[in-house]
Amino acid sequence: MDYQQIIEDIYKEILPYAKEGKQADYIPELAKVDPDQFGMCMHTIYGETAAIEQADTRFSIQSISKVFSLAMCHSIRGEKLWEKVGKEPSGSAFNSLIRLEVERGIPSNPFINSGAIVMADILLTELNNPEEDFLSFVRAVAGSPTIDYNRTVAASEREKGYLNAAIANLLKYHGTIDNDIEEVLHFYFLMCSVEMSCRELSVAFLAFANHRRKFDYAGIQLTASQVKRINAIMQTCGFYNEAGEFSYLVGLPGKSGVGGGIVAIYPLQYSVAVWSPRLNPKGNSVMGMKALELLTSRTKESIF
Amino acid sequence: MDYQQIIEDIYKEILPYAKEGKQADYIPELAKVDPDQFGMCMHTIYGETAAIEQADTRFSIQSISKVFSLAMCHSIRGEKLWEKVGKEPSGSAFNSLIRLEVERGIPSNPFINSGAIVMADILLTELNNPEEDFLSFVRAVAGSPTIDYNRTVAASEREKGYLNAAIANLLKYHGTIDNDIEEVLHFYFLMCSVEMSCRELSVAFLAFANHRRKFDYAGIQLTASQVKRINAIMQTCGFYNEAGEFSYLVGLPGKSGVGGGIVAIYPLQYSVAVWSPRLNPKGNSVMGMKALELLTSRTKESIF
Amino acid sequence: MDYQQIIEDIYKEILPYAKEGKQADYIPELAKVDPDQFGMCMHTIYGETAAIEQADTRFSIQSISKVFSLAMCHSIRGEKLWEKVGKEPSGSAFNSLIRLEVERGIPSNPFINSGAIVMADILLTELNNPEEDFLSFVRAVAGSPTIDYNRTVAASEREKGYLNAAIANLLKYHGTIDNDIEEVLHFYFLMCSVEMSCRELSVAFLAFANHRRKFDYAGIQLTASQVKRINAIMQTCGFYNEAGEFSYLVGLPGKSGVGGGIVAIYPLQYSVAVWSPRLNPKGNSVMGMKALELLTSRTKESIF
Amino acid sequence: MDYQQIIEDIYKEILPYAKEGKQADYIPELAKVDPDQFGMCMHTIYGETAAIEQADTRFSIQSISKVFSLAMCHSIRGEKLWEKVGKEPSGSAFNSLIRLEVERGIPSNPFINSGAIVMADILLTELNNPEEDFLSFVRAVAGSPTIDYNRTVAASEREKGYLNAAIANLLKYHGTIDNDIEEVLHFYFLMCSVEMSCRELSVAFLAFANHRRKFDYAGIQLTASQVKRINAIMQTCGFYNEAGEFSYLVGLPGKSGVGGGIVAIYPLQYSVAVWSPRLNPKGNSVMGMKALELLTSRTKESIF
Repeated sequence: MDYQQIIEDIYKEILPYAKEGKQADYIPELAKVDPDQFGMCMHTIYGETAAIEQADTRFSIQSISKVFSLAMCHSIRGEKLWEKVGKEPSGSAFNSLIRLEVERGIPSNPFINSGAIVMADILLTELNNPEEDFLSFVRAVAGSPTIDYNRTVAASEREKGYLNAAIANLLKYHGTIDNDIEEVLHFYFLMCSVEMSCRELSVAFLAFANHRRKFDYAGIQLTASQVKRINAIMQTCGFYNEAGEFSYLVGLPGKSGVGGGIVAIYPLQYSVAVWSPRLNPKGNSVMGMKALELLTSRTKESIF
Repeated sequence: MDYQQIIEDIYKEILPYAKEGKQADYIPELAKVDPDQFGMCMHTIYGETAAIEQADTRFSIQSISKVFSLAMCHSIRGEKLWEKVGKEPSGSAFNSLIRLEVERGIPSNPFINSGAIVMADILLTELNNPEEDFLSFVRAVAGSPTIDYNRTVAASEREKGYLNAAIANLLKYHGTIDNDIEEVLHFYFLMCSVEMSCRELSVAFLAFANHRRKFDYAGIQLTASQVKRINAIMQTCGFYNEAGEFSYLVGLPGKSGVGGGIVAIYPLQYSVAVWSPRLNPKGNSVMGMKALELLTSRTKESIF
Repeated sequence: MDYQQIIEDIYKEILPYAKEGKQADYIPELAKVDPDQFGMCMHTIYGETAAIEQADTRFSIQSISKVFSLAMCHSIRGEKLWEKVGKEPSGSAFNSLIRLEVERGIPSNPFINSGAIVMADILLTELNNPEEDFLSFVRAVAGSPTIDYNRTVAASEREKGYLNAAIANLLKYHGTIDNDIEEVLHFYFLMCSVEMSCRELSVAFLAFANHRRKFDYAGIQLTASQVKRINAIMQTCGFYNEAGEFSYLVGLPGKSGVGGGIVAIYPLQYSVAVWSPRLNPKGNSVMGMKALELLTSRTKESIF
Repeated sequence: MDYQQIIEDIYKEILPYAKEGKQADYIPELAKVDPDQFGMCMHTIYGETAAIEQADTRFSIQSISKVFSLAMCHSIRGEKLWEKVGKEPSGSAFNSLIRLEVERGIPSNPFINSGAIVMADILLTELNNPEEDFLSFVRAVAGSPTIDYNRTVAASEREKGYLNAAIANLLKYHGTIDNDIEEVLHFYFLMCSVEMSCRELSVAFLAFANHRRKFDYAGIQLTASQVKRINAIMQTCGFYNEAGEFSYLVGLPGKSGVGGGIVAIYPLQYSVAVWSPRLNPKGNSVMGMKALELLTSRTKESIF
């Protein structure tokens, strides 16, 4: 497969969607981003790389960070992790607080906000230097030592983060989180604020695409089986209430972020990252979704 | 891979679970089944077959029938099918009627009861002889002309089927179904009552495992892309509120039934069917789940 | 108080609202009613009567019938009645099936549809001739032997009564009702179809307004305490999700029906019935609500 | 009526319940209270007083304070108050956050926690010295200048008040509250911490029982109609998901607090306050509920 050619063709084909949707604007920092950007990068397990447009421009990875925190929590806690968070998709947008209240404080999965807040709490409990350790892991798995938090974005999100604060308080009420609520929220938003490029994300997710390679980065180790299980959770829970749609259209495990980034993997074949800030009504990148749908259609490669 | 040897080994390993759980007993007909039975059968796309124990004993396929009705509806309606049913997992057991009420009569996906009732309604509308046509399709895809409904089971389920009748009335209230409620329920339960063996199910699902083979049975045709999309829905929605768990432990698209049967496919590799009537609290076969978990662990083969 | 003068003045004052809202039209029979009608009638415990306009025109009492069935069930079962139905207001319109599912088949109170369906079931179980006995009671308490069911309306409502059929099936699923679902629904809709005039309703509810008078009609007996308790339930649950609003604006126990009728009582003072078919968005008569609000404002009489 | 004799008799009759239930213990300050206390006090509009046992012992009025804040908000905002809070009962304990999320940030009524938090926010916006002004009003209406906050209790409740903090954040997310979340919560808990005796509460609620007397205390004025409407809300919403039960058994408007206090009024007759710290599972005083049920049974006086 000539992936470089394929993604160049895809880019041309999705150009008509370049003005559809709008970027996240609930915090000033994200609203400032130029919405008319697009980047895409792939890495195969055989060492091939393909990249187009702003593949090297960094952006706010937001919820994509939840895969990294899950990797760390799963490495540290193993199967005991599932005592504090489920692994079932959460269903429709009819969600978060309602389900959390009904289910007595155990989030449905690690990729909805409540589940990621629980993981932030676990990392605060388990790590000596949570902020440094998380960054070290992300830098190591992405092979890029300059990746960093954007503390302005994090502070800005905390300031307006009433819904996440409501969730954190409800989790504390149910006894699911152990640390101080403000510390948990601070760390949660900080992890979301990490900035990476498509190229860096694609490198990082190659580690998930290739479970035959040893997973060991900055001390975070996962077995092949654990890597595959994280992929399984990406498949069923990676796109909130659009997980079924993504699985149906793209057919790959993946994870999206409100910054406009999407990563996906084709196990034992490739990883791919795409980015464009304009979002559909469900919060996923319009061009990103289109690009990935075309990628698996063109290559006739999907896990199904 | 010597699949025959593998499944024989698996069977020995899961024998300690042989008395765990109990069979469905909400209708007398299902309660009469000897719970201490086990069958397993696999077919690879290369023509290999493996089978053990009661692989040729027929049992009530129940919800596995929903894959067949989805295949028919998708073949007939194409993408328009999704106007009447979603493709998102339904989340927790906190389910059916609540979600249906909240979502104004559109079921989350075709594999929950409400979604399958909608498909029964569509088939009644679209087919000249729905009962015959459904059976013809199942017989053709399974290559077994003696497969049949069990009308005693169907009648017995209808008699006690208050929850499904509530769902059908709610769907009618919302205008989602067009036909007479009793006719829809009759046909729904009839499709669930089909009896097949593991061998027959494994043959039938090989058609889904191998999207490179033409899918055309008794006039029901699906493109490769459509087959893969049905598989994607099996992956995210095939096990009710245990879909995430199955994806995590087994890593294959599949579908279970309350009769104790489970089918799964490894795309472009094999199909597998397993049956044992004793169920876990979520309604899935205890030994069946164990057998499939071991199968992908042993073979180190999963879609992730 | 010159109630005749008061209600004549009120009528003039509410005339500007005469064209607001529209009558129930979900069944042809109710849609046929001339919407531009208004009647009002009061009876004091001292024997005074006041009546204006179409006070003697009969209309479909619909949910007002639930007070009569509650009176019968409470008379027959006493405090044991509350094993099958609660006495708490059901809150917002976010209601019926959701709450019923969450609360495992016990309706919140006897005045929501699910609760009234349970009462229909109880009467079927307890009475030798439920249809005759219910009618005898209503005729006796209203002092009018010609009151009757409208079987055309009842049949028409059953035909379109998918939501109530869903509720009945869910109640049966939970084991709350004992009789055949169709029989229960038939009797439920029949009770709703009773036709009475404002004058007849006012007479009937005088029996609730005056708990010092012996309550004994066609063999249905209630103690003073039981009458007061039925009034208490009217106060908290008589107007679905407008119960608080009615209590706030009118300050009397009452019950409304989708036919446009409303009854209310001022304990130890009077009963009042008002009717006008045009409804507000919550299903209560526009002019009826206005008339009763003005009645308690003018007379400065309310239970608070 | 010899109310003194009646409440003495009632006290003897309820003594067998003296050890039933246990006091609130979710904060150390409330858990320290001797649970084996009981006080009761009545005032008629004709100037009679009856009091027994610890009628003069002060206790934490907790949610009873919500009547005072409603009186202030209704006096200040009039009917515009209802733009930010409803007046419908909230239904079952299946409550608070779920309903709040479904209803887009508008609490069902002023007596559930979310509604009272909205009122705290309104008072912070409207008053120059909210803490002083609230206290001045309570002191004036109770005729007791030494009534005060218990800041230790308030601080202790804030510290463990995760659920209320979740609610406040959700209200802020929906834009229902304007002030800083911590300030709102601080003031909310402070109002709940006011300590009063049964005698003081009975005096204070006499102002609600007698709407013919001018309501004007420390600058807070209510019309007769407004007083009656506050009583109506007490009737339908004063006892959370036991409002229907209280209305059924006692038949008076009232309000309870988790400190074990209950107030009730018989309009144009009397006010009554009762206190005993042991609570039933729904958070209402066991002996208090019994005492009030017997009071209306014995006197045969209720609003119904």
